[in-house]
Amino acid sequence: MSAGPVQQSLAALRLVDHHCHGVVTADPDREGFESLITEGGAWPGISPFDSPVGVAVRRHCAPLLDLPRHAPPEEYLARRAELGRYEVDRRFLAAAGTDVFCVDTGFAPDRLTTPRELAEVVGGAAYEVVRLESVAEAVAAEGVEPDAYADVFRAAAWDAVRRPGVVAVKSVAAYRTGFDLDPVRPPDPEVTEAARRWLARSGRLDDPVLVRHLLWTAVDLGLPLQLHTGFGDSDIRMHRVDPTLLTDWLHLTSGTIPVLLLHCWPYQRQAAYLATVFEQVYLDVGLTLHYVGPARARAILEEALEITPFRKLLYSSDAYGVAEFYHLGALAFRHGLAELLQDRVDADELSRPDALRISGWMGRDNACRVYGLPLSHGEVRA
Amino acid sequence: MSAGPVQQSLAALRLVDHHCHGVVTADPDREGFESLITEGGAWPGISPFDSPVGVAVRRHCAPLLDLPRHAPPEEYLARRAELGRYEVDRRFLAAAGTDVFCVDTGFAPDRLTTPRELAEVVGGAAYEVVRLESVAEAVAAEGVEPDAYADVFRAAAWDAVRRPGVVAVKSVAAYRTGFDLDPVRPPDPEVTEAARRWLARSGRLDDPVLVRHLLWTAVDLGLPLQLHTGFGDSDIRMHRVDPTLLTDWLHLTSGTIPVLLLHCWPYQRQAAYLATVFEQVYLDVGLTLHYVGPARARAILEEALEITPFRKLLYSSDAYGVAEFYHLGALAFRHGLAELLQDRVDADELSRPDALRISGWMGRDNACRVYGLPLSHGEVRA
Amino acid sequence: MSAGPVQQSLAALRLVDHHCHGVVTADPDREGFESLITEGGAWPGISPFDSPVGVAVRRHCAPLLDLPRHAPPEEYLARRAELGRYEVDRRFLAAAGTDVFCVDTGFAPDRLTTPRELAEVVGGAAYEVVRLESVAEAVAAEGVEPDAYADVFRAAAWDAVRRPGVVAVKSVAAYRTGFDLDPVRPPDPEVTEAARRWLARSGRLDDPVLVRHLLWTAVDLGLPLQLHTGFGDSDIRMHRVDPTLLTDWLHLTSGTIPVLLLHCWPYQRQAAYLATVFEQVYLDVGLTLHYVGPARARAILEEALEITPFRKLLYSSDAYGVAEFYHLGALAFRHGLAELLQDRVDADELSRPDALRISGWMGRDNACRVYGLPLSHGEVRA
Repeated sequence: MSAGPVQQSLAALRLVDHHCHGVVTADPDREGFESLITEGGAWPGISPFDSPVGVAVRRHCAPLLDLPRHAPPEEYLARRAELGRYEVDRRFLAAAGTDVFCVDTGFAPDRLTTPRELAEVVGGAAYEVVRLESVAEAVAAEGVEPDAYADVFRAAAWDAVRRPGVVAVKSVAAYRTGFDLDPVRPPDPEVTEAARRWLARSGRLDDPVLVRHLLWTAVDLGLPLQLHTGFGDSDIRMHRVDPTLLTDWLHLTSGTIPVLLLHCWPYQRQAAYLATVFEQVYLDVGLTLHYVGPARARAILEEALEITPFRKLLYSSDAYGVAEFYHLGALAFRHGLAELLQDRVDADELSRPDALRISGWMGRDNACRVYGLPLSHGEVRA
Repeated sequence: MSAGPVQQSLAALRLVDHHCHGVVTADPDREGFESLITEGGAWPGISPFDSPVGVAVRRHCAPLLDLPRHAPPEEYLARRAELGRYEVDRRFLAAAGTDVFCVDTGFAPDRLTTPRELAEVVGGAAYEVVRLESVAEAVAAEGVEPDAYADVFRAAAWDAVRRPGVVAVKSVAAYRTGFDLDPVRPPDPEVTEAARRWLARSGRLDDPVLVRHLLWTAVDLGLPLQLHTGFGDSDIRMHRVDPTLLTDWLHLTSGTIPVLLLHCWPYQRQAAYLATVFEQVYLDVGLTLHYVGPARARAILEEALEITPFRKLLYSSDAYGVAEFYHLGALAFRHGLAELLQDRVDADELSRPDALRISGWMGRDNACRVYGLPLSHGEVRA
Repeated sequence: MSAGPVQQSLAALRLVDHHCHGVVTADPDREGFESLITEGGAWPGISPFDSPVGVAVRRHCAPLLDLPRHAPPEEYLARRAELGRYEVDRRFLAAAGTDVFCVDTGFAPDRLTTPRELAEVVGGAAYEVVRLESVAEAVAAEGVEPDAYADVFRAAAWDAVRRPGVVAVKSVAAYRTGFDLDPVRPPDPEVTEAARRWLARSGRLDDPVLVRHLLWTAVDLGLPLQLHTGFGDSDIRMHRVDPTLLTDWLHLTSGTIPVLLLHCWPYQRQAAYLATVFEQVYLDVGLTLHYVGPARARAILEEALEITPFRKLLYSSDAYGVAEFYHLGALAFRHGLAELLQDRVDADELSRPDALRISGWMGRDNACRVYGLPLSHGEVRA
């Protein structure tokens, strides 16, 4: 990629990562590392290194560990262990060029850094995203009567979002029921009855009535709502997480809270449609970008941006566990978006000032606008 | 784009626009113009000019108003108002290079030009497409007994299509129920019962039985049926307008009328599949092409044409309201199709005579064939 | 396409075609040939030659019959008849560079070559894939009591797969019911009841309970299961053959048999997702590649490989009837994969050794691994 003005501008842009997780707080062994770089598993004879994301790690991350490009997995992991996680995290986070992190703190099968710990690695700002299913499950774990569930959950959610630094809530309804839900707010007796069933069997929140209730509670909280859509691990039923299944709910909640569709692949066009016709809908292609790698990032962004208003796409890495993904996500985003925009500038389909403005919006300002974050001086403004 | 022989041929081809609407008959103000160039709305802080179609208007339409490429929206709108709608319409319609217009006259939230008024701007030919939902709603508005509904609607539809210049009917079932309908022709008592419910509450025709009845009435009328599929405004439930949901109905109606799938995005591959396996099915990517703009028109056409017989894709603009869209639709079609075909010729994957023949078919002759329009002298013939 | 090292390597690679059919044993006339090169029909005024696959035949097959590229259909068919089927088959199969054929023997509306006859044309190896619906239908045709159906079908399936050379089973559930089935193994009384209904009316196996039973019988047989997904003729209901509809069944059968998703288009991304998150799932884009032709093969492979582990994609032609398709499928695969990989090598996104390894895996070794075929000396190994 030759470095035109759009590339240069995007390369220098300090990103706002509007959706990510923490880094594991212990150096992973090979199996641990491999399981962190796949949405599948580490299977005999099928190493996650032999996949697009594995190739991208060896190509784009190895040099930051002082290794040649395309270093073999063994060398990569040995050098990674040698440097240790603090140095590894510092290098990748510095390379990411991200200085604002909105961190989903509600998913931690591994021990992860806190938002503050993550951001401090590069002297950045940390904000928190509250995962509402985790709030509900904590309420259940502490014990609650079914007829008190709605009130106790609501109070717990309010407590969670009132903490300093919280800028959004998130739902993983995609993983629990999918989106083919009755869109209407469930009446109280129905919630109580559903809570009775759920509390009796414990486990994760996957009752359709309670998931609906959770989404409507998000509306009441008034903060932007991040929604996992599309790509994820094998717990997803892909045909039930097409975001257009939310259309009726989006009509009912129009004029209330911003809704941010995360990941979206392979439904990036469907997400783009919603972002085009609903004022409150936004999208990103986080997670997708590092899994497809820089070689396909542009293609995904092309589809995500086909009809999408430029104010509606945000940057996220959705990095989880390994610091490599903050770097890869940012790299793939900058690379893909810059190629797309620079080519349009070169073909005179887009003016250079417009391309620069769009870069700043998508990499930073759109997130600041949606979450009410301060725009640093020197950054692009609307 | 360098101008190879395919580009030159497509640039010179007089197009048949087999599906479009009229132009507003009053000069729109900024808000009005912005609302006409989006399938969403005009929202605070998110101007429709800041989107792919807005960029395309500034790039490709501004020069026709004597402005520099990429002129700012304010200058664009000021110059547009200064010239006035007659001159604006004349310039864009002349630039479109379209001389046959098949106009859907059944949707007019704004005051629009008639087919004749539209075509006369460039001395072209006008044909009419009768929107069957509008016919049914007019029947209801005039008052009808439920048990007479089927007959009165049928008679009204026959009257509508017998008028001179009518070449097709259209249904917006996509907007009313989607396509996951019982494919079988509804029996009379069921139609009467559905009419009773619908007539009692009035409003637009969205009863599933009556929508089915409407589609079967189209079969009886014997004219080609245009069907909105895919992309549209927020009234669409995207997951219910995948055209392959029509498969059972297409089997039942095989051997009767041609069915033209309009717009299709993001289901252009699904539409292409149907056009490949059903003799009576055709498709276009109208509406889509000006919304994605020339920068992505080729990509959409590539998908729409992946497996599609060359006799099965037609050109339409689906322009509505603003004259810019006749120009942009035609430009994106010519540009995208020419790039696609010329590259295949250059790679020796396609012969030049075949590329020229395909251009003529898709831009003009396929529509003439389906609708029985006269082929002008000098045009490509099968 | 300039011939970089990846192209050269792929051009020389002897392919394993893990899913194909036989060639017709009589020289087809024009109508017969045309009906064999379309998933639609041969319709008045719409020749299958006027489609992407028809263009590909004229471009890439004509020279092998000593005709100029892009020869007209008439000349093509005349020369084909002149040479006769033995010579035609020999030329195309030799050009395909395939030396292992896994042949589905259960679909033969035309008289076809046996696997051995097919492979012997080029001195290759033949393996057989048993289509389970054909086994079940043979059981019904021979007569069976409903309460014996399950046992007799199971015994017949065991007999079929125990024959020498059988390496896999196949199901065309996609054509019969689609994949929105109850994923659970049906209990015996339910199978008996369903058999009673089906045997009473005869015809092809399309009862949902018996199709489920068939899929679970495949699990018991222990061989890899090939599943038609996506693209096919008009018997497909495309919205019911999205492979992600199988997710619950894949969870229930995890750890049992390999499942190979065939064709997949337009669901190649959905299939890639399943191959990424389920250890036992693999995919190909056979059938699709020759129908889209070399001009679009790369684009399809790009989508199929976006996130897919490199061990998970296999080569197949899904050729049926005409020898042209073994050649076209192989050509489109080599051409598309080589372009994709070489560009990544040229952009330094992938190392050359990795590209060569991936080529060998996808063209040959992945199939050998899944089906337990011997790897010839000189071939790439994991």
